[in-house]
Amino acid sequence: MPKPKAIILLSGGLDSSTCAAVAREEGYALLALTVDYNQRHRVELEAARAAAEKYGAERHVVLPLDLSAFGGSSLTADIDVPKGDGAVDDSIVPPTYVPARNTVFLSVALAWAEAAGARDIFIGVNALDYSGYPDCRPDFIAAFEELAAKATRAGIEGDAFRIHTPLLDLDKAGIAKLANRLGVDAGATWTCYDPVPGQTEMLHCGRCDACRLRKKGFEEAALPDPTRYAA
Amino acid sequence: MPKPKAIILLSGGLDSSTCAAVAREEGYALLALTVDYNQRHRVELEAARAAAEKYGAERHVVLPLDLSAFGGSSLTADIDVPKGDGAVDDSIVPPTYVPARNTVFLSVALAWAEAAGARDIFIGVNALDYSGYPDCRPDFIAAFEELAAKATRAGIEGDAFRIHTPLLDLDKAGIAKLANRLGVDAGATWTCYDPVPGQTEMLHCGRCDACRLRKKGFEEAALPDPTRYAA
Repeated sequence: MPKPKAIILLSGGLDSSTCAAVAREEGYALLALTVDYNQRHRVELEAARAAAEKYGAERHVVLPLDLSAFGGSSLTADIDVPKGDGAVDDSIVPPTYVPARNTVFLSVALAWAEAAGARDIFIGVNALDYSGYPDCRPDFIAAFEELAAKATRAGIEGDAFRIHTPLLDLDKAGIAKLANRLGVDAGATWTCYDPVPGQTEMLHCGRCDACRLRKKGFEEAALPDPTRYAA
Repeated sequence: MPKPKAIILLSGGLDSSTCAAVAREEGYALLALTVDYNQRHRVELEAARAAAEKYGAERHVVLPLDLSAFGGSSLTADIDVPKGDGAVDDSIVPPTYVPARNTVFLSVALAWAEAAGARDIFIGVNALDYSGYPDCRPDFIAAFEELAAKATRAGIEGDAFRIHTPLLDLDKAGIAKLANRLGVDAGATWTCYDPVPGQTEMLHCGRCDACRLRKKGFEEAALPDPTRYAA
């Protein structure tokens, strides 16, 4: 029997790469989907290509979808990425929030899923994200599953789509441990929102919220951090 | 006081052009959004540009989003567009259904709406469509409004998004009459799924379901049909 197919939203970060490793371990054939939304940190697209190859994706689509046409986020417009040494403030939606980004990502994943006969979609949202980003919360995911049941031919015929969020209850340390257990090459993943050119390669800035959470995760997990930081 | 902004999903067809005319009449400043999804009937993109100009859109974004990467529809893959002389069969989802298309369109509209500070989105879905397409039905629209409330910063702060469907209860004759009353240049709109090259311009095929519904609409409305059909 062929493996069931699953769409994996793969950004090339530690979270989505770990999510891909989970899907492979659960026995799915991977259809990897990376959205090139003209993000400031385009180096993550290369990390996504490497991850898709590593996890033996049947197909990897890098879909251009230029959300920078709309602006409204420090990841797609000329708005500063916050840097600092204090605690990451998770009580407000940060400026790195990209309006409706995960809604767009899941919609495109749903389009591919239905066309390919897949009913399973993996997305690497997690506890750290959903403290700040609305579209990483469990009730958003549940609302999207509801929508998918009404939005598609498969859905109205009673064939449900499942959105898998295997990292939902993990913090960054938990994800680092899971990545380590599954053999994810963390050094080949990309997290930083604001890459810095190094002598021979791009470096993680080490100071944006994403970098700081990543550093803290490896520290708390007591695992070596393979990331090359500029600071 | 400046006019409130609304996102208009504008394909260049009779329905979405009429929808744009309704939004303008209701006092909105129009942000027109056309998705170039590598559709077979790309001539509709020109019709969308003409309509955006005619209705004085503040801005018109034609967003490349290549759904043909996924296939699964006669509008985006090498699957025949149905032609015939019998009644349009509205009991099944037709092969011109593009998986999750309106979910993708509304998601992108939501992204722009939130970035631009708009809370209103217009989409020209209607009674004729929702007989066949799952993502044109009222319960799909309601589910998307629910999702938008959970997916966005504005939504979780209690600022709701509204999806306007002014054509929902109209058939094609009703839309032709409304278009006529609002001064829509129906001859400049594009409906056909399978355009035929004429001597100096592209022609409507006259035989696909979309053409047949369009013809019937003008007939039943007792209005002159300005469309140039090949058959």
